[in-house]
Amino acid sequence: MQNQLVQFNAEYAAAIDEDRLEDWPAFFTEQGCYRVTTKANHARGLPAGLIFADSRAMLADRVLSLRQANVYEAQAYRHVVGLPRVLANDGDVARVSTSFVVFRINRDGTTDTFATGQYLDEVVQESSQLRLRRRDVICDSSRIDTLLAIPL
Amino acid sequence: MQNQLVQFNAEYAAAIDEDRLEDWPAFFTEQGCYRVTTKANHARGLPAGLIFADSRAMLADRVLSLRQANVYEAQAYRHVVGLPRVLANDGDVARVSTSFVVFRINRDGTTDTFATGQYLDEVVQESSQLRLRRRDVICDSSRIDTLLAIPL
Amino acid sequence: MQNQLVQFNAEYAAAIDEDRLEDWPAFFTEQGCYRVTTKANHARGLPAGLIFADSRAMLADRVLSLRQANVYEAQAYRHVVGLPRVLANDGDVARVSTSFVVFRINRDGTTDTFATGQYLDEVVQESSQLRLRRRDVICDSSRIDTLLAIPL
Repeated sequence: MQNQLVQFNAEYAAAIDEDRLEDWPAFFTEQGCYRVTTKANHARGLPAGLIFADSRAMLADRVLSLRQANVYEAQAYRHVVGLPRVLANDGDVARVSTSFVVFRINRDGTTDTFATGQYLDEVVQESSQLRLRRRDVICDSSRIDTLLAIPL
Repeated sequence: MQNQLVQFNAEYAAAIDEDRLEDWPAFFTEQGCYRVTTKANHARGLPAGLIFADSRAMLADRVLSLRQANVYEAQAYRHVVGLPRVLANDGDVARVSTSFVVFRINRDGTTDTFATGQYLDEVVQESSQLRLRRRDVICDSSRIDTLLAIPL
Repeated sequence: MQNQLVQFNAEYAAAIDEDRLEDWPAFFTEQGCYRVTTKANHARGLPAGLIFADSRAMLADRVLSLRQANVYEAQAYRHVVGLPRVLANDGDVARVSTSFVVFRINRDGTTDTFATGQYLDEVVQESSQLRLRRRDVICDSSRIDTLLAIPL
């Protein structure tokens, strides 16, 4: 499974970095849950995140909004994703943690470290490919201003 | 061994990033050696590093000091570790080199590139898990001010 | 092949980061093509890159120039390379995409994010090792000033 997860995470990141956002919802199951929160909130067990979606349809809506708002195109992003740690695997669902860093390339050509954190995933196999039943994106920083712009 | 090393490095990084510092000494053998030095010093063959410990007990002491000093909690860290290159492997000991970058997330929410460098390891198998007989952390930068705060 | 690619990319990065630039041309085939360009130019299909070399001999010349100019030694670099995505593989040639980030460690000890982007490779097997028949380095940023200094 390790190799499959590695490939999965690389494809997920490439869809975002190459601005193929329309491909993004397909990494989730039909009722897949996507949440962005901060480490501080996660540690306190607070349920509400910065972003919350609990179906592929909501994710697709989100992409539509991003396209209309057109905010996204001003910058580019680059994910570098660490190696997945499989925390548990009962055969049906794997719980996996993976570190990430996302760089933002600004219009003036400068590059910032946009976000670091970990993915906390529930991964299932669906018709011979992996899908996210849940991805909690837990950002290390509590600064949230621009976090709303881009899928992480 | 490649897969095992990858998992090992991911767990090592997670222990630090998730502030489970007490788990850190167990990644080393009983007489394991941990050294932090700079690339410039390493190139000159200078033996003394910024940090030097030659047993698991010394590492545990170090964690205690960090907890008492309480310096560590002000920031958070995020390791992103590259792929291990096995330089040599005689069956008992593997010499492995791995690139890393550590980000520091400051209290104001900004993120710095805290350190980059390579791990130069001697890895052994002990009771079916990998342990470090030696980890030299060779930092690219010669700036050492804050390097003393955190295990790398 | 995934494991072999991972090892290959780790060795490529180490040759540069450890200032063994003379080893760099050997990662390419005799008529190997190396190109550095920007994402914007690549998207427009523009053929000319920031750097272009179409043989191992040209790469070796480039290393010689760098040694003579001596610019390179003022800084150090650190690559962190993501996981390779195999886009196509017909048995002879694999097309592979891999994210990278390169940090620059300046003389004053500070560390910048120097470049992010993706490698777009054509990889072949030659005498039991992988070689690049072509590596397009597609930088996310359009800032090109210092890009000319170092192999990416």
